[in-house]
Amino acid sequence: MSVTAAKGFTAAGIAAGIKENGNPDLALVVNTGPRLAAAGVFTSNRVKAAPVLWSEQVLKGGRVSAVVLNSGGANACTGPKGFQDTHATAEKAAEVLDGHSAGEIAVASTGLIGVLLPMDKLLPGVETVAAQLSEHGGEKAAIAIKTTDTVHKTSVVTKDGWTVGGMAKGAGMLAPGLATMLVVLTTDADLESDALDEALRAATRTTFDRVDSDGCMSTNDTVLLLASGASRVTPGHEEFAEAVRAVCDDLGQQLIRDAEGASKDIKVEVINAATEDDAVEVGRAIARNNLLKCAIHGEDPNWGRVLSAIGTTSAAFEADRLNVAINGVWVCKNGGVGEDRDKVDMRYREVRIVADLAAGSETATIWTNDLTADYVHENSAYSS
Amino acid sequence: MSVTAAKGFTAAGIAAGIKENGNPDLALVVNTGPRLAAAGVFTSNRVKAAPVLWSEQVLKGGRVSAVVLNSGGANACTGPKGFQDTHATAEKAAEVLDGHSAGEIAVASTGLIGVLLPMDKLLPGVETVAAQLSEHGGEKAAIAIKTTDTVHKTSVVTKDGWTVGGMAKGAGMLAPGLATMLVVLTTDADLESDALDEALRAATRTTFDRVDSDGCMSTNDTVLLLASGASRVTPGHEEFAEAVRAVCDDLGQQLIRDAEGASKDIKVEVINAATEDDAVEVGRAIARNNLLKCAIHGEDPNWGRVLSAIGTTSAAFEADRLNVAINGVWVCKNGGVGEDRDKVDMRYREVRIVADLAAGSETATIWTNDLTADYVHENSAYSS
Repeated sequence: MSVTAAKGFTAAGIAAGIKENGNPDLALVVNTGPRLAAAGVFTSNRVKAAPVLWSEQVLKGGRVSAVVLNSGGANACTGPKGFQDTHATAEKAAEVLDGHSAGEIAVASTGLIGVLLPMDKLLPGVETVAAQLSEHGGEKAAIAIKTTDTVHKTSVVTKDGWTVGGMAKGAGMLAPGLATMLVVLTTDADLESDALDEALRAATRTTFDRVDSDGCMSTNDTVLLLASGASRVTPGHEEFAEAVRAVCDDLGQQLIRDAEGASKDIKVEVINAATEDDAVEVGRAIARNNLLKCAIHGEDPNWGRVLSAIGTTSAAFEADRLNVAINGVWVCKNGGVGEDRDKVDMRYREVRIVADLAAGSETATIWTNDLTADYVHENSAYSS
Repeated sequence: MSVTAAKGFTAAGIAAGIKENGNPDLALVVNTGPRLAAAGVFTSNRVKAAPVLWSEQVLKGGRVSAVVLNSGGANACTGPKGFQDTHATAEKAAEVLDGHSAGEIAVASTGLIGVLLPMDKLLPGVETVAAQLSEHGGEKAAIAIKTTDTVHKTSVVTKDGWTVGGMAKGAGMLAPGLATMLVVLTTDADLESDALDEALRAATRTTFDRVDSDGCMSTNDTVLLLASGASRVTPGHEEFAEAVRAVCDDLGQQLIRDAEGASKDIKVEVINAATEDDAVEVGRAIARNNLLKCAIHGEDPNWGRVLSAIGTTSAAFEADRLNVAINGVWVCKNGGVGEDRDKVDMRYREVRIVADLAAGSETATIWTNDLTADYVHENSAYSS
């Protein structure tokens, strides 16, 4: 399934030796057409990895015939040599995939920043992975892009004669613009790159961009949508956009559920905001408050930390009209003590915080995680 | 010493029973004149505690005769009743301090948000603490305002015939605008409130406002500067401003060194920025990056996380001209790999990160801490 659920795509994943532990680390996704339309969204971090700089150029043409993805190294902050390595990777893929041009091959990398990729492993790996391309290879490709992910993430939506499927990786450095991750979506819908671009940007804006596990924005975030046209069906704009949004939403939820060290998945809903921007700003401020994230970890419905987070924003609100519910209990009413906090049941993994700004009718939902000792342990040892 | 180092002040600190564990929790500082000039700086959090709302009004008059401070409860998000409690506290202090007016008595509180103070303990406590006022009471006052602080913090600078002294508390919710804390500074310099205000704002802007332990801004931050004029000396503007800055800087350093759960004190110096605002924005982005803070905890000189933090800012820089030094080793040069990261000695508590933006000549320094499992433990259990 995954990226090979839609017709017109092959994929494969192998262990090329990029990771020292021998785990799968190289994936290839190929669009077999007839159409080669594509759209992409990339990190808004101004320090961009070499593969992001490369793939942004590739996507300008609106055509992508293949995507090479590696885990085991981000190829970020690696200077001109890092960019040459990405270029060489695309050239190698073009060479082994007869009739392809390097300028239509996107590259994505994930792993430690500031380390050159072992090209003596990666380039032979491109040959090996190309030899294993299959219409059933989506699962293996999804496995090969994992870093600290404990599970691989895939999602598929099938409509009348056409399909949108995809894979994602991401477990840390998960924050908007985009959440740190690599995502490849494929569809056999018969659409041009402009239509793909519109649907993809609309979908990521309210899904991946509202996943904020740890407030840390990556240098490598990449979301690609490839269309083969193999279904010969051209879906309506709304229908297609909704299918892409559904797959992005599902993959975004899977990212949050697998976030490094997390013990709680926290849904922060901001309601009755004056504007959607206000709602997003307040949602992010709550989602990034370390003290609140620690409290949730301790199953402590500490609404004071929600209010102190809201207070740091520029959103429209009056402090004495704010209401906060945690898991359905309005523990804060009109900026003060509300219902008994002992009524809040925090035993389950899902925690729902509703912040009512009482300033309008706009809403936004941000997904985050708690802050745990396991997160600290995992991230204090990552590169050592 | 502390707030009683300068002539013209008395202070005391007692256990009034506000804290259930019986630790000291109520302090009183009194300006015995002849002058009663004062200035104050308060949290920029838009959700302000009742004592902040009260004291902001008091300070508008430029006269403060006494400050009542309690730990064991923040009196934040407590609605009209919370404000009445603060008012009653000032009235009680005015009553027991003969000849004082409640409108000249500042109040400051610290502790859990969203809980009413036990006024049946606090009001009798004001009588008790007033009975113990002494010219040697500064130390006891400093002890009574501790929450999770492991040590009390005081600082004194003595000049030609005049003195600036002070006390501070703060160990968590430490982030700018201001860092979460209560600070009372006193001086016997003979100055009017305008001069105090100018010196205080200049000092806090480059000291407390650049302490960012955990990115969480409090609802209760209060910094007061009281002048008694008892030295009969009117120092020069520059000299006085520098003395206030020195005391604020020293107290700010003490706050960072005692931050909850921290094992490293991190000095983030941003150099060669186009503007001071750019330098501060970049310094804060680095100081608030959870992944970097975890890496420093693990003694891992992970400069890639410094670059990914810089990349999230709007500061002027080119990614391929950035340089980063950790403890004196330029591990990142021109946006890529620099000197051998194994040369970085991370064994000591002090860690110095220099981020060179290569975009101008402005600098700023932000102080922060690492992110540790102890921080998570301490803050997941705080209110339970």
